[in-house]
Amino acid sequence: MILGVAYYPEHWPEERWETDARLMREAGITRVRIGEFAWHRMEPKDGAFQFDWLKRAVELLGRHGIKTILGTPTPTYPAWLHMKHPDIHQVNSNGTIREFGMRQDACKNHPGYRDYARRIVTRLADALGKHPDVVAWQTDNEFGCHGTARCWCSYCRKAFQEWLRKRFSNDIRALNTAWGTFFWSQDYNSFDEIGVPRDTAGCAGNDGQNPALVLDFYRFSSDVQVEFQREQIKILRAKSPGRLITHNLMGAHRTVNYFHLAADIDVVSWDNYPFSSNGTNLPPNSMHHDLMRGCKQKNVWVMEQGSGQGGWGSYNATPQPGQMRLWAWQAVARGADMVSFFRWRSCRWGREQYWHGLLYHHGQPQRRYQEAKALGAELAALSKELDGTTVESQVGILFDYDSIWALETQPCAQGFDYIALCREYAQAFARLGVTADGVSLDSDLSRYDLLIAPSMHLITPEGAERLKAYVHNGGTLLLGPRSGVKDTEDAVVDALLPGLLREPAGCHVEDYDNFGMVKNLTMHVRDEDDRVWPARIMADVLVPEGKARTLLTYAGHYYAGKPAAVENPYGNGVCIYLGTLLDESGLRMLAERLLRRVHVSAISGLPECVEVVCRVKPGGTYTFYLNHSAHPVAVDLVRPGVDLISGKETTGKTEIAGFNLLIVKERG
Amino acid sequence: MILGVAYYPEHWPEERWETDARLMREAGITRVRIGEFAWHRMEPKDGAFQFDWLKRAVELLGRHGIKTILGTPTPTYPAWLHMKHPDIHQVNSNGTIREFGMRQDACKNHPGYRDYARRIVTRLADALGKHPDVVAWQTDNEFGCHGTARCWCSYCRKAFQEWLRKRFSNDIRALNTAWGTFFWSQDYNSFDEIGVPRDTAGCAGNDGQNPALVLDFYRFSSDVQVEFQREQIKILRAKSPGRLITHNLMGAHRTVNYFHLAADIDVVSWDNYPFSSNGTNLPPNSMHHDLMRGCKQKNVWVMEQGSGQGGWGSYNATPQPGQMRLWAWQAVARGADMVSFFRWRSCRWGREQYWHGLLYHHGQPQRRYQEAKALGAELAALSKELDGTTVESQVGILFDYDSIWALETQPCAQGFDYIALCREYAQAFARLGVTADGVSLDSDLSRYDLLIAPSMHLITPEGAERLKAYVHNGGTLLLGPRSGVKDTEDAVVDALLPGLLREPAGCHVEDYDNFGMVKNLTMHVRDEDDRVWPARIMADVLVPEGKARTLLTYAGHYYAGKPAAVENPYGNGVCIYLGTLLDESGLRMLAERLLRRVHVSAISGLPECVEVVCRVKPGGTYTFYLNHSAHPVAVDLVRPGVDLISGKETTGKTEIAGFNLLIVKERG
Amino acid sequence: MILGVAYYPEHWPEERWETDARLMREAGITRVRIGEFAWHRMEPKDGAFQFDWLKRAVELLGRHGIKTILGTPTPTYPAWLHMKHPDIHQVNSNGTIREFGMRQDACKNHPGYRDYARRIVTRLADALGKHPDVVAWQTDNEFGCHGTARCWCSYCRKAFQEWLRKRFSNDIRALNTAWGTFFWSQDYNSFDEIGVPRDTAGCAGNDGQNPALVLDFYRFSSDVQVEFQREQIKILRAKSPGRLITHNLMGAHRTVNYFHLAADIDVVSWDNYPFSSNGTNLPPNSMHHDLMRGCKQKNVWVMEQGSGQGGWGSYNATPQPGQMRLWAWQAVARGADMVSFFRWRSCRWGREQYWHGLLYHHGQPQRRYQEAKALGAELAALSKELDGTTVESQVGILFDYDSIWALETQPCAQGFDYIALCREYAQAFARLGVTADGVSLDSDLSRYDLLIAPSMHLITPEGAERLKAYVHNGGTLLLGPRSGVKDTEDAVVDALLPGLLREPAGCHVEDYDNFGMVKNLTMHVRDEDDRVWPARIMADVLVPEGKARTLLTYAGHYYAGKPAAVENPYGNGVCIYLGTLLDESGLRMLAERLLRRVHVSAISGLPECVEVVCRVKPGGTYTFYLNHSAHPVAVDLVRPGVDLISGKETTGKTEIAGFNLLIVKERG
Repeated sequence: MILGVAYYPEHWPEERWETDARLMREAGITRVRIGEFAWHRMEPKDGAFQFDWLKRAVELLGRHGIKTILGTPTPTYPAWLHMKHPDIHQVNSNGTIREFGMRQDACKNHPGYRDYARRIVTRLADALGKHPDVVAWQTDNEFGCHGTARCWCSYCRKAFQEWLRKRFSNDIRALNTAWGTFFWSQDYNSFDEIGVPRDTAGCAGNDGQNPALVLDFYRFSSDVQVEFQREQIKILRAKSPGRLITHNLMGAHRTVNYFHLAADIDVVSWDNYPFSSNGTNLPPNSMHHDLMRGCKQKNVWVMEQGSGQGGWGSYNATPQPGQMRLWAWQAVARGADMVSFFRWRSCRWGREQYWHGLLYHHGQPQRRYQEAKALGAELAALSKELDGTTVESQVGILFDYDSIWALETQPCAQGFDYIALCREYAQAFARLGVTADGVSLDSDLSRYDLLIAPSMHLITPEGAERLKAYVHNGGTLLLGPRSGVKDTEDAVVDALLPGLLREPAGCHVEDYDNFGMVKNLTMHVRDEDDRVWPARIMADVLVPEGKARTLLTYAGHYYAGKPAAVENPYGNGVCIYLGTLLDESGLRMLAERLLRRVHVSAISGLPECVEVVCRVKPGGTYTFYLNHSAHPVAVDLVRPGVDLISGKETTGKTEIAGFNLLIVKERG
Repeated sequence: MILGVAYYPEHWPEERWETDARLMREAGITRVRIGEFAWHRMEPKDGAFQFDWLKRAVELLGRHGIKTILGTPTPTYPAWLHMKHPDIHQVNSNGTIREFGMRQDACKNHPGYRDYARRIVTRLADALGKHPDVVAWQTDNEFGCHGTARCWCSYCRKAFQEWLRKRFSNDIRALNTAWGTFFWSQDYNSFDEIGVPRDTAGCAGNDGQNPALVLDFYRFSSDVQVEFQREQIKILRAKSPGRLITHNLMGAHRTVNYFHLAADIDVVSWDNYPFSSNGTNLPPNSMHHDLMRGCKQKNVWVMEQGSGQGGWGSYNATPQPGQMRLWAWQAVARGADMVSFFRWRSCRWGREQYWHGLLYHHGQPQRRYQEAKALGAELAALSKELDGTTVESQVGILFDYDSIWALETQPCAQGFDYIALCREYAQAFARLGVTADGVSLDSDLSRYDLLIAPSMHLITPEGAERLKAYVHNGGTLLLGPRSGVKDTEDAVVDALLPGLLREPAGCHVEDYDNFGMVKNLTMHVRDEDDRVWPARIMADVLVPEGKARTLLTYAGHYYAGKPAAVENPYGNGVCIYLGTLLDESGLRMLAERLLRRVHVSAISGLPECVEVVCRVKPGGTYTFYLNHSAHPVAVDLVRPGVDLISGKETTGKTEIAGFNLLIVKERG
Repeated sequence: MILGVAYYPEHWPEERWETDARLMREAGITRVRIGEFAWHRMEPKDGAFQFDWLKRAVELLGRHGIKTILGTPTPTYPAWLHMKHPDIHQVNSNGTIREFGMRQDACKNHPGYRDYARRIVTRLADALGKHPDVVAWQTDNEFGCHGTARCWCSYCRKAFQEWLRKRFSNDIRALNTAWGTFFWSQDYNSFDEIGVPRDTAGCAGNDGQNPALVLDFYRFSSDVQVEFQREQIKILRAKSPGRLITHNLMGAHRTVNYFHLAADIDVVSWDNYPFSSNGTNLPPNSMHHDLMRGCKQKNVWVMEQGSGQGGWGSYNATPQPGQMRLWAWQAVARGADMVSFFRWRSCRWGREQYWHGLLYHHGQPQRRYQEAKALGAELAALSKELDGTTVESQVGILFDYDSIWALETQPCAQGFDYIALCREYAQAFARLGVTADGVSLDSDLSRYDLLIAPSMHLITPEGAERLKAYVHNGGTLLLGPRSGVKDTEDAVVDALLPGLLREPAGCHVEDYDNFGMVKNLTMHVRDEDDRVWPARIMADVLVPEGKARTLLTYAGHYYAGKPAAVENPYGNGVCIYLGTLLDESGLRMLAERLLRRVHVSAISGLPECVEVVCRVKPGGTYTFYLNHSAHPVAVDLVRPGVDLISGKETTGKTEIAGFNLLIVKERG
């Protein structure tokens, strides 16, 4: 269990560094992340490199027992490079420019930027890659933030054409067929004719262009980030052997395929900002934790843990006493082996003056520092117990980028949002004390007894085979509405829905409706016990096939009485097709039912504000009970044991103070 | 009575065509529209034409008794043409580009586009213009959709200057005087200095530029569409004699003067999408039907009748069982002689994947096909009765583009929208079982006993003479608020309002107010029977003159007790000036009063969900009773007769099933 | 007391001028403003000047006893100049263009525009500068309206670089240090690298760029206006000796530093549009009057007083009978020596057709003319009494542009708006019958017993010294929340807040919160009498120091019981630090308390609709009682005297008719 912090020695006089390092050490901090925005300090003029200051900082920290995670400084290109390459900037879908002054805003397909980026990473790795105080690397910073994963400039147009040429084996007819360009006379005679999806008459590019083109542009844009990172990793592996490489992800992010990005790094880290907008309930961050952990199906680091009010022009509420510590423990509970605050000290300058650090701008330790220090002591004390533990989920939730992107350009119905569905499922399981990994179709699915596909909207033949095998081998699969609609290139399939998934689903869709558009209509579904549950937005009207049986029926509108959910035995497993969206109560009912089926124990009756998570290792089970309200709450312990925080034996009904937690090492 | 469908053979394998044609024939379909988006298929490379596939499709359909309406493929220019003319695209008012990928988005003033458009139409007409299975033409598609009637590019600037040169007889001083360019020092020394109304400091072009310039730009933009169509019509008349020419309009559209566009074609067709957002009340489409019928004051075709969920990114609700048929019959009742569904089969590709056809993407006949088929049988059976019937309106509603455009750039008050007013009047009459043609000042007004001018905001001297003659000859004219304000070139008149209409109106406006801006003010007007009715937004405070008498007085604010409506005998007719806006109840009161005056019988007490319309021919009156709710409803028949649907004698109170109708052939 | 009107002889036939002048004279009008939008009329072609028409107009008016205030015609450049300099236009922050057709939209840093502007002013001053009927000049018109004070074009970029070079003595390292460009690697190697703050990835320039750069760009943009005016003033002083020079300001404007602009002119004039959106309460214009008067700490002119419905596309409500006169008297009461209506006659053409004049477009005198005429007679009759009187405020409210701009780019919390705070304070005092000048840190502060700094957010060392001296010398200073946060170049200070103001404030800020972001939290503060008052948005949690004592404590959230307001004796005065925002009731409580402390008499119990203001001169006190409601209201006179309007003795409880006033010349 490591406590870290993001530190910017380049922001402060060198005389101050010693004080900072001492205060860090006293707080139990043993890691800093450094350097990711300091290109100009490292290369103040074209080709004139300066790494001495950085080495001094690393070594000074090292003397205090603090090791460095070094960031490659490519997110912020220097102004002199802008002067050299005035067209280095990204371009928006309407053709306007993303001017110098932000981050990640150089076009990654601009050859000048690429050259300079390679060179600075190479020189930095040369300078510090083998330094004993440098223990890890972070590539760049938050790929894709501020919408920068997608750029509509002419360099990207060219690169997109090349990407397509490769994807379609240089066969333009194959592309025309796959994309259905005969629609609206959009056939291309050559790859050179294809554009990036800029805004059209009356529509943003996302809304007006051929959705197949948009989808491939999204895939291309994600691949550009992955490829850009791969280039850096190659340099770092060569020049800095033995160091872990990470990148700081952003939770449930939409524009970069995180499974691809994570495949190339050693450990996933991420930036966790559970802002204190709501003092009394479970923060909705559990989904982000679960997805980050699922990216590589193993423990993670939190590279940036909110350490105060966040915000640029306006800032958020201040964390209340106890919340920072609680949220850090939540991160550990859900799989983090390092929690690193962002940032050490609030920067006196620049756009992030109000993205506050552990210290205010004046640098004097106050409440937030003291909280971090208390946490540091706890983490150190419990490391022996917790090191080596992991979160073992029996449930997986598919975070499928193809479906996310297909639905981004064509959401089918307002309010039908893949990521929001993931959050709802994740919350439903979290409220039952069950963790669910966010995974992809390429993940090891055999780990899970239960797999949720909120909407398997786009499914490739390979993906369909994987899902079939999963169920066949005994898995339980839930398919949400609008599954199986799209093929690999975003065409609607030429078959009864759910297309390639019809066989495991054991049903077909006879009609589909967006009843959310009908005024004054309230929709329900009825279950086998004749209870009714609210339904939302959309209805796939189902026809069961073979051995399938109906679980839910629509309780209104013109398809009243027709199946809304169908359950089908398939091989050794079972597949449930749910044709509509449920609300919180319905999702809880469904989750409980599914968990019973797969023999995963859920905790019913948990107070709204309490989160329960387990970390385990051979010979040890550690159950975290986190109270996210400001007030004390009593909770029935699942199993008795010793609370590692207080050192007391606990059993049965136990009170947890406001913004506090128990870590129960269970007996047996 | 013809049943048709939009068909895209270029989207489907040729082996499928036979199946499609057979299914169409079985459904009673005898017309298809083909080709309007297939430029690239017709001319895959510059100058290399291919019409064979099209001929094969036309002939295959012909063999099934299905005749073709051929669309000119100019709305979607091919990508190779974009490469040849990179500046072929339209430009927005802020200077950004409308990129390739949409429709109607080539600049119609781009000489390259114009040349290529002429050529493809010529070659298509050469190839198929005299084919016996081709019975009609559709020019292009939905001129002006996606805002494309207006383009702010440099070609348009040049063309606009030429248009103005002609309008002002090459006399720049005449323009300066008419536009009042001395305001803000905007005098032009030559036509070359005049721009298209692009966005200015702090304002969109529509809101910041001289309104006279904006109005003429709107007129010019409409004329460009009309002229573009005229060019195609000239070719088609020469190369394809004897075929009807149509264009598919879009109901109450704002940017193209439909009376001008309709003048050049043989029959108006239009695209009717009464989406099922509201299952229980009369859909608000009656105004669109009435305006389309009014465009040429004769029967129309529905070229696209909604056949399922519509939408691009998100789609609408699915029509409930019976609604598609009911809406098609509504179209017939209100003047359509052909109803052609859009489209045959949902396209598997492209932006309109979710603009659903009679068949889903899989192509297997289901519910919506069966409904169309039932309708086909009914239409065939009733053709003998209904062919030759027309809708004979005694009421006209002026759909005046000059006023619409003048109010678009200067609406006077938020919420004062000409087209919304037309809808309110149309609805008020529809709810009384009275049809009202949407007409222009150039239409044959003598047909109508009652003429509604929702706001005769801009009136030319010729227009004023026409209205005076109309009243003088016995007509009853209602003038709404803010009438007579603007002259031909959008200057406010130099006279007491309503200016040129003061004489027939028998009053002048002593003050005018936008009381909608006054907080906490609720306004009413009082009628002669001392009843009060809510008034909305604005008040023209009137002073009656001559023999005029007051109908309504304001019941509040500082002009309480002053006239709000005045009635003036004028020649053999009467003119009513209404100085404010009423709500639904007030409009019904007014409509009833006006109808009594002109001896048009209205039906009072109609259920909200029931629509009543007549088609007549010598020796036959057919009254349609349409139930727009899902539930049965009883209605008092106006006159007894035989219900042609059921074949039964009907009289007095009669029940109509949900989403069903009666067509009562009346006795006598 | 002068009555004037804005007149545009260039809009009307010369034959009409005589009628206009006669009607003006009959209404008591003795001033007109002319010419500010007539560049093309004065110079129809490059270098071909025509001033004869203007001279004829000036002289014709002169013959009717009407003197002219001449406007320099630079806000609207002619179209021929656009042709000569196609890049003369301003540019938006996203790079799009502000097209010809609006006002103030030429780039003031475009050298061509500057040359032509100088020349037209010179030639106009040559032609009419010494004419006896020309008594004053107005420079340009409403600098900065429509957002035109800020332009993001390449000329501005160059000029901004020069401005920075001067500000930082050509030392780029000084700029880098002050701006903290090491944040995000934005260090500049030369001034040539610095851009204007255009839009970045994901953010508008205001929201994404370094706030220090944004702040200096705002300062630069304001300086450009001031410098541009200075250039004109230099010409006018030389060519037109003895004439007063003014500019028409816009009340509480955000983008131009009005104190700087006012320093160069002889008298502040401004444009006052108290639209009648609310018929019954005090209009919120008192702040604007108070700020305009405070700009030079002396009486002002109203150059444009609303004379009817205002608006471009839509217009506002019509002033009710009596309101125009009442609002004009309000202007006089609050310090105007001239009230000049805008405009004489509603323009029949152009974008301001609906910005109505005293006459409607038809030019026939009606109600609004008659009201102006009655006012003219009153002003003439009372001039002897009122000439030479002034408003003597004992309260000042700081309108601090540095803080306004720093908060514009970083508002800290949504809803925390400096100008809105000024309005709230101004209203609180106005409702107590106390006038408060809007002033700057450079104004003569010694005049005021009480000084309000709504948020002294950015404070320079010099500013801090001035405030300290003010309190030290006996003044009472109120500091609002988030004071002392920023240094001269927008860095957060390196000290406990309120930084440079900590000593007079007698406290420091231990924590700060944006509790407006916390759901379901209602916050209060508790005063010494245990009464609670609602608090809004934010909390500076205070720690009193030295002799300071606590006035208010927070009554909730995690800092309940901690100080929310602290009062500190300092030298001969006292400083109050208020750490949160109050609502209307709390502000009234605070204002009463502060006024008692400084022995300024407030009127309690004034009806909501009544405004009370004094003008005084040696030997005369004139108290205005204005009834802003439509209904009569009784008010207790502060002191007895003669009502100059009615000529009657008044004392004690006196009724004032709706939209009417008393001007009580007090006895003694």
